[in-house]
Amino acid sequence: MNITTEQMRFWSPEVRELEPYIPGEQPKIQNLLKLNTNENPYPPSPKVVAAVQAVLADSADVLRLYPDPEASALKHAIAAQQNVGVANVFVGNGSDEVLAHIFKAFFVQQQPILYPDITYSFYPVYSQFFAVKTKVLPLNDDFEIVVDDYKQANGGIIITNPNAPTSIALEVSAIEEVLQANPNSVVVIDEAYVDFGAQSAVSLVEKYENLVVCQTTSKSRSLAGLRVGFAIAQPHLIAALEAVKNSFNSYPMDRFAIAAAVASFEDQAYFEAQCQKVIASRDKLVMELESMGFKVLPSKANFIFASLPSKNAGELAAQLREQGIIVRYFNKPRINQFLRITIGTDEQNQRLVDSLKNDILA
Amino acid sequence: MNITTEQMRFWSPEVRELEPYIPGEQPKIQNLLKLNTNENPYPPSPKVVAAVQAVLADSADVLRLYPDPEASALKHAIAAQQNVGVANVFVGNGSDEVLAHIFKAFFVQQQPILYPDITYSFYPVYSQFFAVKTKVLPLNDDFEIVVDDYKQANGGIIITNPNAPTSIALEVSAIEEVLQANPNSVVVIDEAYVDFGAQSAVSLVEKYENLVVCQTTSKSRSLAGLRVGFAIAQPHLIAALEAVKNSFNSYPMDRFAIAAAVASFEDQAYFEAQCQKVIASRDKLVMELESMGFKVLPSKANFIFASLPSKNAGELAAQLREQGIIVRYFNKPRINQFLRITIGTDEQNQRLVDSLKNDILA
Repeated sequence: MNITTEQMRFWSPEVRELEPYIPGEQPKIQNLLKLNTNENPYPPSPKVVAAVQAVLADSADVLRLYPDPEASALKHAIAAQQNVGVANVFVGNGSDEVLAHIFKAFFVQQQPILYPDITYSFYPVYSQFFAVKTKVLPLNDDFEIVVDDYKQANGGIIITNPNAPTSIALEVSAIEEVLQANPNSVVVIDEAYVDFGAQSAVSLVEKYENLVVCQTTSKSRSLAGLRVGFAIAQPHLIAALEAVKNSFNSYPMDRFAIAAAVASFEDQAYFEAQCQKVIASRDKLVMELESMGFKVLPSKANFIFASLPSKNAGELAAQLREQGIIVRYFNKPRINQFLRITIGTDEQNQRLVDSLKNDILA
Repeated sequence: MNITTEQMRFWSPEVRELEPYIPGEQPKIQNLLKLNTNENPYPPSPKVVAAVQAVLADSADVLRLYPDPEASALKHAIAAQQNVGVANVFVGNGSDEVLAHIFKAFFVQQQPILYPDITYSFYPVYSQFFAVKTKVLPLNDDFEIVVDDYKQANGGIIITNPNAPTSIALEVSAIEEVLQANPNSVVVIDEAYVDFGAQSAVSLVEKYENLVVCQTTSKSRSLAGLRVGFAIAQPHLIAALEAVKNSFNSYPMDRFAIAAAVASFEDQAYFEAQCQKVIASRDKLVMELESMGFKVLPSKANFIFASLPSKNAGELAAQLREQGIIVRYFNKPRINQFLRITIGTDEQNQRLVDSLKNDILA
């Protein structure tokens, strides 16, 4: 919409300058194959349904009452699944909210925070929102994080692992190197995609007082529609997140979100089985695409980052869209010849492959 | 918990100074009568249950997909119920999140914002969080807002109407006076309790380009457990809220929250009937308490603010607690001889009256 200069006077001056994040689209098209926002192709654990049914008991009478502002039941379930203490857990309304609180809690410092040039595009948005200084460090030519770059003076570090949209993972030993080089900075490892084959840094939380690990239920737990994210860290860092959260919104987790997420964390077998299915489908899809001439970065995520040297990526994305297949295309320096493709079921991936083979590249 | 000075170095300096909001407690005691957080004594509309069941269809498969980041269905339902356009509606994760975004969007100004000394105690917290300057204006001796005080230079105004915890409402004409006196400031009317007999300022939105009205589903719609709040304003102000929201969290409303709240807004008859029941019970309770010597401020809310001249209020709250009845007591200047008592069902209110008559004041 057009806002006049006169109307703009009502906005806080700093808000006039904001450049908000733009999420992947959620179109409502029939027979669409949606491989653009890294959702899981499988439904959540059947126990989620039962847990929500329980909230609805007695005419949903319990909805009239505020939820537990601490979401203690959820913290307990996460702690048990992650093998940490309850005091090591922070929860929020999606990992986006958790990340926002992380930026406010730790990164408003004299020195700039460090993150890669190619990574989750919400980081610069949070930085502007909270007036966090930033220093952006380029990935190398293989789109890998250069660990030595993260040994300079800084006000904090945030690394997505596996990185997005590259899909490439760091070893835990590399993360440990970053932690050791930065004893006075908070190092945040954003593990939105960690459950698809990468190593989690949660095992390092007990040892490093400067580590925050952030995860989400949106990908590996098939709960993107629920908005539940969490962070794991030592209690003195969790306390900062709680102070921020309680200065912003006392009750961010609704009763359905708490109950459903608890049920998901309690069903470890289902969770592991679904992750394995996605990993197996990914490996199959990568082989198929490579056989067609695609270059695919080595993925530890539920998506791949692929380019076809003979074909413009933006054009390819547009042609796939005409076939009812949506992938994510970033028209940005360095990555504008890549497509980010979410791993679907084998059947869905086959539709993508067939469409490429038989129509677009025929 | 105790955090050492050394550990504190990880916190953003400004976060070290935060004094977070403290919500009313949510204790888990058997046979407790909970009259402390202004929840509705009646369950939500039966249509809420059906709407959530629909989300669970097909093994809750839809949960694996992100919700609509715009929550358009909810904006439409609110617009229809409030008789405004869809472009006049902003939604958030409880009205607390909506208020937080309001503070960031409009109140980070050179001049201080104005609000009463006795009002929602989250306002100073947001102000500190977003570095908003404030000027606090005392209510008069009858605990009323002095409209003329809100005609001085300011960077914004926020008024709870009916006010909390006083329960006293302003007429819409008084709000219009404030709006007219402040053509260059955003005036926010926080109507969390408006549906229990006060006049809403939503009718003024079309006329005043500087008005934001904020409401919640937590009280009158019995959905405190769901976390859905909203704001109504002209589109150029809604745009500021969207810019802030999209710089913080793209998907704050989960699929259950959207579906359940839509169902609630579509059931106007149920909503009105429940509000009338609460109002009738309030009037009865006030008469009972006054007959016992209580002074009760004139309430247009789903709670009353009452004092008993012969008795210390803090002591009275403690004695009620011993009887399993929790009310809210604020140990703050000017109001430390009052109790804020949520209106329950007639049966619940009678338990309070009986407890006072037969035990505590016998």
